Amino acid sequence: MGKGGKDGEEDNMAAWLLGVNNLKIQPFKLPPLGPHDARIRMKAVGICGSDVHYLKEMKLADFVVKEPMVIGHECAGIVEQVGTEVKHLVAGDRVALEPGISCSRCGLCKEGRYNLCPDMKFFATPPIHGSLANQIVHPADLCFKLPEKVSLEEGAMCEPLSVGVHACRRANVGPEKNVLVMGAGPIGLVTMLAARAFGSPRIVIVDVDDHRLLVAKELGADETIKVSTDVKDVASEVEKIRKAMGTEVDVSFDCAGFSKTMSTALGATSSGGKVCLVGMGHTEMNVPLAPAAVREVDVVGIFRYKNTWPLCIEFLRSGKIDVKPLITHRFGFSQKEVEEAFETSARGGNAIKVMFNL
Amino acid sequence: MGKGGKDGEEDNMAAWLLGVNNLKIQPFKLPPLGPHDARIRMKAVGICGSDVHYLKEMKLADFVVKEPMVIGHECAGIVEQVGTEVKHLVAGDRVALEPGISCSRCGLCKEGRYNLCPDMKFFATPPIHGSLANQIVHPADLCFKLPEKVSLEEGAMCEPLSVGVHACRRANVGPEKNVLVMGAGPIGLVTMLAARAFGSPRIVIVDVDDHRLLVAKELGADETIKVSTDVKDVASEVEKIRKAMGTEVDVSFDCAGFSKTMSTALGATSSGGKVCLVGMGHTEMNVPLAPAAVREVDVVGIFRYKNTWPLCIEFLRSGKIDVKPLITHRFGFSQKEVEEAFETSARGGNAIKVMFNL
Amino acid sequence: MGKGGKDGEEDNMAAWLLGVNNLKIQPFKLPPLGPHDARIRMKAVGICGSDVHYLKEMKLADFVVKEPMVIGHECAGIVEQVGTEVKHLVAGDRVALEPGISCSRCGLCKEGRYNLCPDMKFFATPPIHGSLANQIVHPADLCFKLPEKVSLEEGAMCEPLSVGVHACRRANVGPEKNVLVMGAGPIGLVTMLAARAFGSPRIVIVDVDDHRLLVAKELGADETIKVSTDVKDVASEVEKIRKAMGTEVDVSFDCAGFSKTMSTALGATSSGGKVCLVGMGHTEMNVPLAPAAVREVDVVGIFRYKNTWPLCIEFLRSGKIDVKPLITHRFGFSQKEVEEAFETSARGGNAIKVMFNL
Amino acid sequence: MGKGGKDGEEDNMAAWLLGVNNLKIQPFKLPPLGPHDARIRMKAVGICGSDVHYLKEMKLADFVVKEPMVIGHECAGIVEQVGTEVKHLVAGDRVALEPGISCSRCGLCKEGRYNLCPDMKFFATPPIHGSLANQIVHPADLCFKLPEKVSLEEGAMCEPLSVGVHACRRANVGPEKNVLVMGAGPIGLVTMLAARAFGSPRIVIVDVDDHRLLVAKELGADETIKVSTDVKDVASEVEKIRKAMGTEVDVSFDCAGFSKTMSTALGATSSGGKVCLVGMGHTEMNVPLAPAAVREVDVVGIFRYKNTWPLCIEFLRSGKIDVKPLITHRFGFSQKEVEEAFETSARGGNAIKVMFNL
Repeated sequence: MGKGGKDGEEDNMAAWLLGVNNLKIQPFKLPPLGPHDARIRMKAVGICGSDVHYLKEMKLADFVVKEPMVIGHECAGIVEQVGTEVKHLVAGDRVALEPGISCSRCGLCKEGRYNLCPDMKFFATPPIHGSLANQIVHPADLCFKLPEKVSLEEGAMCEPLSVGVHACRRANVGPEKNVLVMGAGPIGLVTMLAARAFGSPRIVIVDVDDHRLLVAKELGADETIKVSTDVKDVASEVEKIRKAMGTEVDVSFDCAGFSKTMSTALGATSSGGKVCLVGMGHTEMNVPLAPAAVREVDVVGIFRYKNTWPLCIEFLRSGKIDVKPLITHRFGFSQKEVEEAFETSARGGNAIKVMFNL
Repeated sequence: MGKGGKDGEEDNMAAWLLGVNNLKIQPFKLPPLGPHDARIRMKAVGICGSDVHYLKEMKLADFVVKEPMVIGHECAGIVEQVGTEVKHLVAGDRVALEPGISCSRCGLCKEGRYNLCPDMKFFATPPIHGSLANQIVHPADLCFKLPEKVSLEEGAMCEPLSVGVHACRRANVGPEKNVLVMGAGPIGLVTMLAARAFGSPRIVIVDVDDHRLLVAKELGADETIKVSTDVKDVASEVEKIRKAMGTEVDVSFDCAGFSKTMSTALGATSSGGKVCLVGMGHTEMNVPLAPAAVREVDVVGIFRYKNTWPLCIEFLRSGKIDVKPLITHRFGFSQKEVEEAFETSARGGNAIKVMFNL
Repeated sequence: MGKGGKDGEEDNMAAWLLGVNNLKIQPFKLPPLGPHDARIRMKAVGICGSDVHYLKEMKLADFVVKEPMVIGHECAGIVEQVGTEVKHLVAGDRVALEPGISCSRCGLCKEGRYNLCPDMKFFATPPIHGSLANQIVHPADLCFKLPEKVSLEEGAMCEPLSVGVHACRRANVGPEKNVLVMGAGPIGLVTMLAARAFGSPRIVIVDVDDHRLLVAKELGADETIKVSTDVKDVASEVEKIRKAMGTEVDVSFDCAGFSKTMSTALGATSSGGKVCLVGMGHTEMNVPLAPAAVREVDVVGIFRYKNTWPLCIEFLRSGKIDVKPLITHRFGFSQKEVEEAFETSARGGNAIKVMFNL
Repeated sequence: MGKGGKDGEEDNMAAWLLGVNNLKIQPFKLPPLGPHDARIRMKAVGICGSDVHYLKEMKLADFVVKEPMVIGHECAGIVEQVGTEVKHLVAGDRVALEPGISCSRCGLCKEGRYNLCPDMKFFATPPIHGSLANQIVHPADLCFKLPEKVSLEEGAMCEPLSVGVHACRRANVGPEKNVLVMGAGPIGLVTMLAARAFGSPRIVIVDVDDHRLLVAKELGADETIKVSTDVKDVASEVEKIRKAMGTEVDVSFDCAGFSKTMSTALGATSSGGKVCLVGMGHTEMNVPLAPAAVREVDVVGIFRYKNTWPLCIEFLRSGKIDVKPLITHRFGFSQKEVEEAFETSARGGNAIKVMFNL
């Protein structure tokens, strides 16, 4: 518990997004602890591309930051206190946090597609506060206990990993599905790791950058292919991909989301396969949709994730997925370090995941 | 049986596609009857858009007519003779014919997705002959007996209807799925009829043509909406569609296949829904794929159909679908009438389905 | 609003189960109205077999009535007041009520299988009070607005109908599924009606009672078959069922739940089909499970229902299902009538559904 | 090729089942090689429990051996010759053989459930000859090329392994499914190995025999539990299983098929889970079906397998499954050794798989 008092509020500090490129550590008053809530002392918080985007633009898609907002949503910590109705946690438990609170009352929630809930309250998606803070209060059912083997940093990595896991579930990846991944950035990498953990026997990954492909290879890609950004190369690159796969491409993940990457994915995927659109480079896409459709290549998208934390934690516990190599930079939770950490993440370069240790 | 002899071959005539706009009735020698085959005397053959396309261009997509080819593939007739191993048919049975013969040996066939078989032999898809002939020989398992209530013309309509049925299955239409149909041409109409038969409670159909919308309304659309061809109108038309639906659009069928119709379908379909691409106006499409994908609106395509004849026949038998109003023109099987029939179908206008009675 | 005061509590009376065969109308204090709740004036409440069972035995399966409990769970009424956060209802709305409140926090709830929630709070399942009362308070998201065409009595019938709808969904009934229903009691009848609404082309229903079969026939069964209770007749009755079906039995619903009915269902269902166990006659069953399993006949069970109210209401609105003929007896809400109503329901005979009009 | 002539027929010998306990090596005339066939020189043939059963009883379930029949169906060999239409194989290729030839014309075949084809022709299922012979002729599409890493003996093991793979597919095993296996005989072991390869994180296996449990442990079971054959112990054993699992039992495989094992599986499997009936001890089973059904525990059965060879071969190639420890005994193809091999298999004891090397 915090030194300041019985509920740790007095000294609770958080990283507030106040304006473009303006992030300040300031006090953050916690809401009261409800009967189904837990109060968590944050220990590891990762920086996501969307966090950087908000810092640089104060908006993302339709979401606009109008009031100061605490940032951060990839996180894990230690339980300080639980509400009266909470039975699966006790103070001292190490937990990873799922960041979105769905309404549980709409049709989509009741059908089990709560990630599509129109009333979702999600960390650091305005006007909801995020989790880069000493402490936060969160529904206890969204706090998942970590087994001894899994570190708090790995717990925080459950969030980006969940994107890959949800994508693999949507595309029905399994031991019979050969997988193509377009893009070897952080999302491409977690998707690749998830596909492997779901049993994919062969994974080919494609990028424009040599270093990223090298990392992908080290993390377990069977083959890597360097491509151009020129849309005229689609046909020849599809040919290369097929050759590298050596068999049918059953599932493609477009983790870049450009007209070119999507065209390549649609062209490379075999009849009856699936293309999962994960990345978001272009909004409007100019793609050969009809030829893919007549081969019954389905296009499925993803929005965040649902019910992924238990599986992510199991993948980490069993060693089927090792996310530690993805954590390339670490920072403490001071004003200076917070600024530096976001700069590091924004610069990209060799940074994959930048992590705060609080 | 034909007057000419024991196996009817002597007088077997067929409509041969010889060149652009050159269709001639000429003798057609039947192949020998295999143990699993049936010889069928054709009685009703419909004209499909693809038939007209071959007549006008001698090709369709990657298929090129290089040798004279018998045309026609929407057909029904009467069994003249069956092979030694055929048990479910006898001479005199009235049957509707499924036009495609799959290899039954490849992975896709064995998984039950035989419509995607790379070795498919399909009526009137070069170099395979079609069925606009007095008699043809066909695998008996692709000849489906018609119940007394269902006419031979209705039997021939199982082919276009199968497109709608396969689309509905792929999009998982049922009594909980409100449906949008983009395009009220022949394919839009059969898709609408199929969606109704699958139980869709509410169907809105959209077209640029008043007459087509009128027909759609008469055939059972709940609401019709006239739209423009201008891509700038997408947002306002999506709004109109939603208002007309009065509830969520769960499934959209794009039976036109243009960038605009697809954009409208993607925009109108609610989170977690499906867009099924049925029509083939544009190959490359410029569409807002990413915004749809993040709402987990899936895009599924169709290629022909599989296992649809029994269900189509049941829909016709029970009266859940009435295809008779779709048959707008009828012709006999003389050189002059064949030419006139194809001209009628090519002109479009009020013609929905042009049918030969042989 | 009730005449007694601003929140109707003063005169709120309910039917309390006090002991075996001891049901008394007594005051029922309402809980406070939460922000997401609605207060409903009950207008129509049906009697279910489980209600009668509790009255006669004070228990059902593992549930034991230890404290006085308000009975009743098939109900519809009029909204009196809504909580501050409720947006889809206003006072005066006519609503049908889904009786079970799931926790929304467990894994099963989050996966959309909330009917299996271990912390379910369900009307008239001890220790939770039921809904045979002048007024009750219930979560507003479980109160479904009825369209003008659908009466309050029909609204109350959504509950038993939901059992049939959930069974049909679990067994994947649709326009290609020929259905066998074992048992023509109330549950058999709603299952039959639901199967028809899901598009089943042919339904054969089986019972030991002539009158029930007559009712089933009037309600739309294609064929009815009278059977014995003697297990030695299974083989011959399976033969009769197959003959009556005239084609494959794709799905069987055992709405009786005896070793014999289940054996018949398993024997009659064709390879690759499904048997759905709906009724609960026997707990331990002696059945030919292995021969069915090797034909890949799946056995699926049901527990209550989930997400069924919107579909039930749509079926009633469209007229695809008419439940009115099932309501055979009506009673007012006086001590004498309540006793008489339960006696009528317990006696069985020609009673299908006994309904209270409050 | 055989020394005797151009097509190897002259000296082709096979193991003929002539009567109870009467198996003789005698000449076996090969059928002509069709255009889609391959002639295979057998190199590895395993003995299955069903082979032993036929030898001891001359029948199995409804199948009766009325004429002398060549036995054997778990096999791999080397291609000697292929038919004119065969493109994926050449002489010299090492192949594993799928033993069943389905009709490819019935509804079940066309839906991709060819294992349920009523006209299936299956090795060593009367009156169809098996494959324990020097050479056989088989459809080439049922001959699957082995990669260099996979031995012919491992190829022959694809057949029993296919049972486990098909069971896992039917029960939807994956990285989120904790698995219980009832019975540690050969089928229990291949099911366990398949479940692991499909990603199951935790597998508990149960048997009455210490040695079998020891083998299961060595092959990778997380926990083993020794049980009795007394049906009175079901409740306490269910308790032990749950404790050993430490979490929910999502899928249970009953690889024994007795009333007791099935009761245990039904009781141990958690709400919403599946029980897959694989073994065939009892035909009539006396089981607590209703309590399982109300928890929506589905019961699914299996009949042989479909489309499993490519996946089995991939599992063997990648090392996800190692079947070599299952091959406990090896014999040559002489009269004496054939008799001895069947005796060894019939005796059971430490024998898991008895293999012929031809």
